[in-house]
Amino acid sequence: MSMDSVDALFASAQAGDRRALARLLSIIERGGSDAQMVGKLAFPHSGAGYTVGITGAPGAGKSTLTSALVGELRRDGLGVGVLAIDPSSPFTGGAILGDRVRMQDHVLDPEVFIRSMATRGHLGGLALAAPAAVRMLEAAQREWILLETVGVGQVEVEIVEAADTTVVVVNPGWGDAVQANKAGLMEIADIFVINKSDRTGAADTRTDLEQMLDLSGLGHDGRWRPPIVSTTATTCAGVGDLWAAIQAHRSFIEASGELAHRRAERSSDELERIIRARITARVDARRASAAFDHARAEVLGKRLDPWEAVDQLLTDS
Amino acid sequence: MSMDSVDALFASAQAGDRRALARLLSIIERGGSDAQMVGKLAFPHSGAGYTVGITGAPGAGKSTLTSALVGELRRDGLGVGVLAIDPSSPFTGGAILGDRVRMQDHVLDPEVFIRSMATRGHLGGLALAAPAAVRMLEAAQREWILLETVGVGQVEVEIVEAADTTVVVVNPGWGDAVQANKAGLMEIADIFVINKSDRTGAADTRTDLEQMLDLSGLGHDGRWRPPIVSTTATTCAGVGDLWAAIQAHRSFIEASGELAHRRAERSSDELERIIRARITARVDARRASAAFDHARAEVLGKRLDPWEAVDQLLTDS
Repeated sequence: MSMDSVDALFASAQAGDRRALARLLSIIERGGSDAQMVGKLAFPHSGAGYTVGITGAPGAGKSTLTSALVGELRRDGLGVGVLAIDPSSPFTGGAILGDRVRMQDHVLDPEVFIRSMATRGHLGGLALAAPAAVRMLEAAQREWILLETVGVGQVEVEIVEAADTTVVVVNPGWGDAVQANKAGLMEIADIFVINKSDRTGAADTRTDLEQMLDLSGLGHDGRWRPPIVSTTATTCAGVGDLWAAIQAHRSFIEASGELAHRRAERSSDELERIIRARITARVDARRASAAFDHARAEVLGKRLDPWEAVDQLLTDS
Repeated sequence: MSMDSVDALFASAQAGDRRALARLLSIIERGGSDAQMVGKLAFPHSGAGYTVGITGAPGAGKSTLTSALVGELRRDGLGVGVLAIDPSSPFTGGAILGDRVRMQDHVLDPEVFIRSMATRGHLGGLALAAPAAVRMLEAAQREWILLETVGVGQVEVEIVEAADTTVVVVNPGWGDAVQANKAGLMEIADIFVINKSDRTGAADTRTDLEQMLDLSGLGHDGRWRPPIVSTTATTCAGVGDLWAAIQAHRSFIEASGELAHRRAERSSDELERIIRARITARVDARRASAAFDHARAEVLGKRLDPWEAVDQLLTDS
């Protein structure tokens, strides 16, 4: 794609053209040099919006909760961008979006932009694409960006790291389902939501979470203690409380300097990812090379050991 | 560690000193330059033994089955090395081994060498360490090497790729437990074992597997069709059949050229892993550098975008 046409798309997206924005996000999703062009244009706008990550086990009701939260933001007259990211799906944008009936309340609202992103092959790509997509939404003047992931694995956690405030959604009786991941969730949660809190076991789940938070030492020495919000997203019960908790967390980390610190850390992480992606591309190119084939033959013939072979490969180019 | 002392340990291990062998495997497990020294010494012996990978979901009875299989090998007078690899455990060697009561039948047999390996921090390390450990056992003249993993995730699959023949252990009713991973297991299995086959559902599980194999198209065009062996490892029932199936698979892939092909592929994969490890070390070093801090500050100040910053970092050194 030419620089000129990317420039033109970008200008249209900034002026409010949703189709142009959708195309730019597709370009970011695909990765490569076009994605980098878009990323460079959007970069100066990074930090212009505020990003809320919403994560939790499949079936926890994240999509319904996100939709209800969009309603709260809209009542306050705020522009919203929603990115729903599914690392495990081979489908992109339209395909998933069609299924996301819960978002249908907002699809006709011009101040709400909703977009799904999926893998297109390689997982590492999404960890690179997510911050770039957030930035593109910031460049398109979305004040609030909701970043929803489908699962709660390592990839999802990496993606949610692109958010300023992270909401972890659990359900009554969650303990059994995500036993192994509890400690990980504790590390990333700024706010816990017990969704479907009208079900049995909600009180036990709250006690369980409070105990884990007590043990974690959060809330002392000027550190934020994640509040626990009970919601029933299908009826919007408690969603106002969640919105209040998000705003409280934002104020807290803005005042304490934690927001600036987090964003600086993210910037380092992004640099590291870009370095890794560049170097991986070089390794892949090298694997397809005659030098690699030669090295491999030498190793198979036991004329070189693998370390000597790699020494030669990395010295030669 | 000095080259001389590594040389001396290596000579002892080759001469049958089990403690020297254990120490060398610990060195391989730790990674780094000492591991590379050992790897270089062992390299000429690669392919001298034959490696059988045994994988399957936790609780499938892999450890009991491995122990029973060792019994079969010993009845045939063969020397055996067992590597039990647990990517999720922070414990190494001795610690796990203490729990592996099922292996106790063999701990006093000088012709059986049993060793556990765990993560020591980073997962990628085991995928590098496993083939090196196998090679060390080959150098120590183990004719048969059993490589047992604890789970069946992506890491375990990478580890099992170091094996010549891969045995996938399932249980009656496995379908629900590993639904998501069925296709992946189909790809790696050379032999399926239905262990605990005295339990209800064993016949259904066999039908299920046969249908999957029918769909896979394996067994045609000169390709191997994985046999399904029923065992009850606790009573050794069917373990003789498993041993026969392993020998049949070995003969098949030796005759067809598939063994040589697999080993060549593994050699490429190992080269690639070594390249990645080297480059990752370089990236890590760079992240700790003043140049990285400078680049990061430039990006935070929005004087450079992240791609420009990485360009500068990768050009400078």
